Amino acid sequence: MRNLTLLTDLYELTMGQGYFREGKHEEIAVFDVFFRPNRLITYSVAAGMEQATEYLENLHFDESDLAYLRSLGIFTEDFLGYLKNLHFTGDVYAVREGEIVFPYEPILTVKAPMIQAQLVETALLTIINHQTLIASKASKICAAAQGDVVMEFGLRRAQGADAGTYGARAAVIGGCNSTSNVYAGKLFGIPVAGTMAHSWVMNFPTETDAFRAYAEAFPDNCLLLVDTYDTLKSGVPHAIEVFRELRAKGHEPKGIRLDSGDLAYLSKEARKMLDRAGFENTVICASGDLDEYSIRSLKEQGAKIDSWGVGTKLITSADLPALGGVYKLAAVYDEDGAEIPKIKLSNTTEKITNPSFKDVYRIYDRATDKAIADYITRHGETIDESEPLLLFHPVDTWKRMTVTNFRVRNLRTLLVKGGKRTSPARPLMEIQKYCAEEKGRFWEEYTRQDMPHIYKVDLSPALYALKSEMVEKYGKGD
Amino acid sequence: MRNLTLLTDLYELTMGQGYFREGKHEEIAVFDVFFRPNRLITYSVAAGMEQATEYLENLHFDESDLAYLRSLGIFTEDFLGYLKNLHFTGDVYAVREGEIVFPYEPILTVKAPMIQAQLVETALLTIINHQTLIASKASKICAAAQGDVVMEFGLRRAQGADAGTYGARAAVIGGCNSTSNVYAGKLFGIPVAGTMAHSWVMNFPTETDAFRAYAEAFPDNCLLLVDTYDTLKSGVPHAIEVFRELRAKGHEPKGIRLDSGDLAYLSKEARKMLDRAGFENTVICASGDLDEYSIRSLKEQGAKIDSWGVGTKLITSADLPALGGVYKLAAVYDEDGAEIPKIKLSNTTEKITNPSFKDVYRIYDRATDKAIADYITRHGETIDESEPLLLFHPVDTWKRMTVTNFRVRNLRTLLVKGGKRTSPARPLMEIQKYCAEEKGRFWEEYTRQDMPHIYKVDLSPALYALKSEMVEKYGKGD
Repeated sequence: MRNLTLLTDLYELTMGQGYFREGKHEEIAVFDVFFRPNRLITYSVAAGMEQATEYLENLHFDESDLAYLRSLGIFTEDFLGYLKNLHFTGDVYAVREGEIVFPYEPILTVKAPMIQAQLVETALLTIINHQTLIASKASKICAAAQGDVVMEFGLRRAQGADAGTYGARAAVIGGCNSTSNVYAGKLFGIPVAGTMAHSWVMNFPTETDAFRAYAEAFPDNCLLLVDTYDTLKSGVPHAIEVFRELRAKGHEPKGIRLDSGDLAYLSKEARKMLDRAGFENTVICASGDLDEYSIRSLKEQGAKIDSWGVGTKLITSADLPALGGVYKLAAVYDEDGAEIPKIKLSNTTEKITNPSFKDVYRIYDRATDKAIADYITRHGETIDESEPLLLFHPVDTWKRMTVTNFRVRNLRTLLVKGGKRTSPARPLMEIQKYCAEEKGRFWEEYTRQDMPHIYKVDLSPALYALKSEMVEKYGKGD
Repeated sequence: MRNLTLLTDLYELTMGQGYFREGKHEEIAVFDVFFRPNRLITYSVAAGMEQATEYLENLHFDESDLAYLRSLGIFTEDFLGYLKNLHFTGDVYAVREGEIVFPYEPILTVKAPMIQAQLVETALLTIINHQTLIASKASKICAAAQGDVVMEFGLRRAQGADAGTYGARAAVIGGCNSTSNVYAGKLFGIPVAGTMAHSWVMNFPTETDAFRAYAEAFPDNCLLLVDTYDTLKSGVPHAIEVFRELRAKGHEPKGIRLDSGDLAYLSKEARKMLDRAGFENTVICASGDLDEYSIRSLKEQGAKIDSWGVGTKLITSADLPALGGVYKLAAVYDEDGAEIPKIKLSNTTEKITNPSFKDVYRIYDRATDKAIADYITRHGETIDESEPLLLFHPVDTWKRMTVTNFRVRNLRTLLVKGGKRTSPARPLMEIQKYCAEEKGRFWEEYTRQDMPHIYKVDLSPALYALKSEMVEKYGKGD
């Protein structure tokens, strides 16, 4: 495993030395990871907690790291000696991977000695921001594909090897069926997909020769790329010719892939040609600059496409290439273990943080089993399911509703306790299934692409009272 | 070093098995990496060649890779046995890192046995696409900053650890002075930057306490974040108070950082306050969602900002999150070593590839030492600098000009020969310097952000003739 301990912003270490000097470095602090709304975020799919756990368990400065830090000339030997023995010993509460999550709710909380909590900020954000971003994009793309197979094809346009590999993992959490990335297939057990490129076709004297050679090499997995020269005049007829030869030898062809041109028109014409030739069971796979918008448009146009290879726009989340998750101090503890809540003020009310160590609950209507709202409480608050529960908007508090006949679920589990994971890694396909099931518990009004209803993320009265009191106290300027 | 041999699309391996089966796997092939124009690309800064070289030198399937491929059930034992001994033995021609490059010109060419050339396609594209993208974005941002210090601060919003780390490397090639990413600092010798976060300020009873504690810990590197509560009423006055104490002890403060609010107004007011207090030599550093557009706008507004911390929009290249570089077959060789040029047709004239193994020259005017045009030739063509050279547009051939008093430079060197690098890695700061110098050889009309002139990338008559002949021959449909 790569040692990513230095994958941190320098200021985490300068602050670390400052806390060390002040004797504050082992004070316990609570930091929350959450993200803010954005016109493109309707809901998000949490991902990356597994890699975050691996990172935390592996945290240590090796000799070369310390030698490098020493070379910077800004750290004391005392402090470097302290770092030499540093490991992560804190607790981490987090939503499950595949969980549907919303702005403002703490999807991950670190409770750890100050210096550790500060040091891990950057890498936790990098990991969680990235995978949550791609899982969310994949979820939207798969929703547009309405149950069709979606293959992740973006590696060559990914922002580096990790972006391609952990991006493939996140894409599968969000609903993709497979990836072209063999490395991701090996690491995470994701089904891998792919057959041929244009270069294969160009490497034979004729297109038919190229198709025939491929069919002979992979008689039971024969999916032919038909757009190298002319899709309808050359590619599809040649594919049909080779499919007939294949069938004569007792093999059924898989289908064709279209990678350019007017995919709506070409797929409809190709479908007719394949059907007329008796290959009704072949699939038509499309690729080329696809995303949730183009897939929806192609479906509206009646394109005859069975499976979708989605590349650049998925693996980079092209219309929103960063989630913008933040990591904010929520509390510290005094010598007696009493909580001192912390708040970050802002002139924009929505940007004021929620103070104190918190829990997040999801409230479901028992009659429909659909999610009604998320509900953030101070840590340890209990919710009585047998009593009506008043929900109110955290800013416009006159917007309120009372719910009855509901159940609540604590959205977060203790992921890491005392620096060690509490449970083994979950198989990726189980996470995908969990995500799909939980998404099914949301009314489509909340998850649709166009002008969705805003799902409620409310505060408990106790948390709201604390926040109001702190805003009142600290919000008066100097 | 991580073994990234499996960082490839599955189809590279299925085609590999196909070529192996056909006995074509060791035929020599030539593939070009190039990218197409895009409304946001005026020029690009090539980067990633060093990591591409490391990847190629390290290419090998280890036992666990082969076991994984075997488990897929689609590869023959013959083929897996062949992969077991596979290494990269080919040649790679590439532009230098830091080179200013343009659409359509082959910035990297692989000449290798077919199976190897195909296998390395994906990872080469991933590496070159990513680093070239970020180096180009950085170059534009640094141009907007007009010589001010630019710090790369994006790690937490990067698309994974590699995106943050190799992105920082690329950002420095494009002109950034430093990075917050300590891991990148260690790996590449990049200067690292950073002091404190809002959490530091929130962790002390008062802002002044927080500033004072930091000043005591880093008396000679005291740059204070002044926007936690109220920049002008609280942050700057408290910073000045602590700066006075620092000076009384014989240390000069570094300055302040603004991370939110109206950076134009706040920086102007803060500058006045600092100057009036006798701290004219302190710097004002700004951060928060910056890019080339906002930096230019802030400069137009007269913001008093000395250094720029640029994060999300740089590290993700937010307005163009993928470069879209491609890898296209240009030629194969027959048994006698004769070149068989290859072409990929398209209904869009600009998308038709340039056939054959090629060279790329840059033509400079001797009087001004400015670049006039790039000039793509068939491999081995020579250009006589003592004779007038006719340049013509590769599509609209009536657009032509004759140049005299020029010099030419072969833009590419032999990066890898027979699978081994031809020269040691260059120090990153040397690459940055090279990039800046070469950029200085372009008229600003070609590199400016708004409506730039299109820099000419032309074909030699021999290459144009070959291309025309092949389009004529293959372009007639079925």
